[in-house]
Amino acid sequence: MFKYEVVAECKVTGARAGVFTTPHGVINTPVFMPVGTQASVKGLTPEQVKDCGSQIMLSNAYHLAMRPGENIVKAAGGLHKFMNWDKPILTDSGGFQVYSLSKIRKVTDEGVKFQSHIDGSAHFFTPESDMRLQEDLGADIIMAFDECTSAGIEYKKARAAVIRTSEWLKRCKAAHTDNSTQMLFPIIQGNVYPDLRKLSAELTVPHAECGIAVGGLSVGESAEEMYGMLDVLQPILPKNMPHYLMGVGSADYIIEAISRGIDMFDCVLPTRIARNGSAMTMNGDIIVRDAPYKEDYTPIEAGCDCYACKGYTKAYIRHLLKAGEVMGGSLISIHNIRFLHRLTEKIRAAIIEGTFPELLEKFRKTASFL
Amino acid sequence: MFKYEVVAECKVTGARAGVFTTPHGVINTPVFMPVGTQASVKGLTPEQVKDCGSQIMLSNAYHLAMRPGENIVKAAGGLHKFMNWDKPILTDSGGFQVYSLSKIRKVTDEGVKFQSHIDGSAHFFTPESDMRLQEDLGADIIMAFDECTSAGIEYKKARAAVIRTSEWLKRCKAAHTDNSTQMLFPIIQGNVYPDLRKLSAELTVPHAECGIAVGGLSVGESAEEMYGMLDVLQPILPKNMPHYLMGVGSADYIIEAISRGIDMFDCVLPTRIARNGSAMTMNGDIIVRDAPYKEDYTPIEAGCDCYACKGYTKAYIRHLLKAGEVMGGSLISIHNIRFLHRLTEKIRAAIIEGTFPELLEKFRKTASFL
Repeated sequence: MFKYEVVAECKVTGARAGVFTTPHGVINTPVFMPVGTQASVKGLTPEQVKDCGSQIMLSNAYHLAMRPGENIVKAAGGLHKFMNWDKPILTDSGGFQVYSLSKIRKVTDEGVKFQSHIDGSAHFFTPESDMRLQEDLGADIIMAFDECTSAGIEYKKARAAVIRTSEWLKRCKAAHTDNSTQMLFPIIQGNVYPDLRKLSAELTVPHAECGIAVGGLSVGESAEEMYGMLDVLQPILPKNMPHYLMGVGSADYIIEAISRGIDMFDCVLPTRIARNGSAMTMNGDIIVRDAPYKEDYTPIEAGCDCYACKGYTKAYIRHLLKAGEVMGGSLISIHNIRFLHRLTEKIRAAIIEGTFPELLEKFRKTASFL
Repeated sequence: MFKYEVVAECKVTGARAGVFTTPHGVINTPVFMPVGTQASVKGLTPEQVKDCGSQIMLSNAYHLAMRPGENIVKAAGGLHKFMNWDKPILTDSGGFQVYSLSKIRKVTDEGVKFQSHIDGSAHFFTPESDMRLQEDLGADIIMAFDECTSAGIEYKKARAAVIRTSEWLKRCKAAHTDNSTQMLFPIIQGNVYPDLRKLSAELTVPHAECGIAVGGLSVGESAEEMYGMLDVLQPILPKNMPHYLMGVGSADYIIEAISRGIDMFDCVLPTRIARNGSAMTMNGDIIVRDAPYKEDYTPIEAGCDCYACKGYTKAYIRHLLKAGEVMGGSLISIHNIRFLHRLTEKIRAAIIEGTFPELLEKFRKTASFL
């Protein structure tokens, strides 16, 4: 039920345009995946998310395990039915959340003991329990349970996490034996150490069937460090499957990563900055909340085909933001998600037409896609 | 451009089914009007409000004058364009908000001096300035600038407010000379004193062209006191125009008021209680946030045709509420608004079919519309 085909590849950069088939639908790559951490893209109905052109949504196994509990989701008929979303879903394993949200945690070879960030209750996640958890949730794509490390951690610790992630991957594979309805994506770690990224890739690639992820980036390191790691990985990543860079959702990171062979992205950025009043445009972010837009009776971005730009002005959206009306954040969220889809659609078209190097160069020179 | 026709009248109670024509569309009465105080029904797009079956939306001149300022709305092309709502709009004059929101205010015969509840800035509203304000906003129906009094205020003060409201009404009429595109609804005051309600009605009716409102109720008095005032007014209210009871939005008040000749209602209740997790049903309110619904995989209300009930379970909505996702409140808001429309549609059908007395009696006996 899973299949990935390269439609076009940029001869200069190796950027790819592909088609990724999953049980709940076909995804044109490169693709940005909006995030519904708690089984809801904040402030939007599933129909509104679809209207943005979203092809797949991400949710989070850690959060759903903490609340409402995977038993509730399973009894509802799985995550698709629970949240009323009939397109593909990817669940993150929670490896990153255990590392980023739990103040008290203890990592051993067996697994991770931690306290819930909600009520402090004690939990123990292992590769085996995490596979059961994600099987209960029922997403199309599930992620390996990995050990994510902070930016700037020392080499020895980063290496240990690579080895542990690799050992846990074997246990994930042993626990999740059927990739026909749920595809397990292994995750490459290695922090910002080129040889560890290489090592992790070599340990991970043999276990990847139709999808592989790069984790532990966009966690505080510099853009150059991140691009450097992607440069190391590009020749190693198998060509016959999608490459997913976890936690990236800004226009510059996206085009740079695509130029290094990445196909899939997710991030809370477009919806989070929207709630604070920031909108993404082909010419950079604008802060709609700011005074200059008080009497601006034009849409967020000229020419944008999103619901917000078709019906509302910056003056109105700014009013909603200032007045504390959630619809202000929802309208910008719609725009920002649509923007990232327009961006990847534009990049995909350029790859297919063979003009991607020019698009990339222009962006590098002007920081604009106009 | 304004016209009101009685389609059917209950011979026993005097309850009316009507058709009210306005510049932006025809309204079947009795009607509930959802409230977008700050030019947004909290958490819903205009399309979502329309999908609930809403025929007219209410907004508030006081709030819009304070933020973003009527000049912004006027420059945007008026409230319909500003908020992207092409059906009828009614704006409240702000008389009630000046009384309920401003801690510091001074009422004289000339008008009301008060401080903004947002930034403490000084303002002075007069009947003349309020008409200009509402003309700038551009709603189909505008409300007279009145003096609202608290529940339980002494007779003498209540009488003075009736007289002042009447004097102000004459000034509103002199300032707003053209009812052809914006219909001015005068407001009857009189607190809970039957003879003052009668006096106010007599002073008000001559100035009503196609719509009259009852204000100063549902502000803390008992249900019996409110019904008593409506009983006093019913024989006095002119039959050839809609009767609007301000600030009422609960099922019991609505059916009781309709049985006393009321045609129009507005209230923030359905959306406010929704955000706290309460849903209205034909059999009374249920608190979806409560534990019993944790594993309830059925819609809020069986048989309801709203978007929330067609796609989501109580277990999912409860999860959203517990997780702090605004979509939980939005889904219940959709249901509650649709519920009030289903209720008035059911009552309207009963009036037309001649079965309203039975519906009313059953509700009085069982507190249920099932």
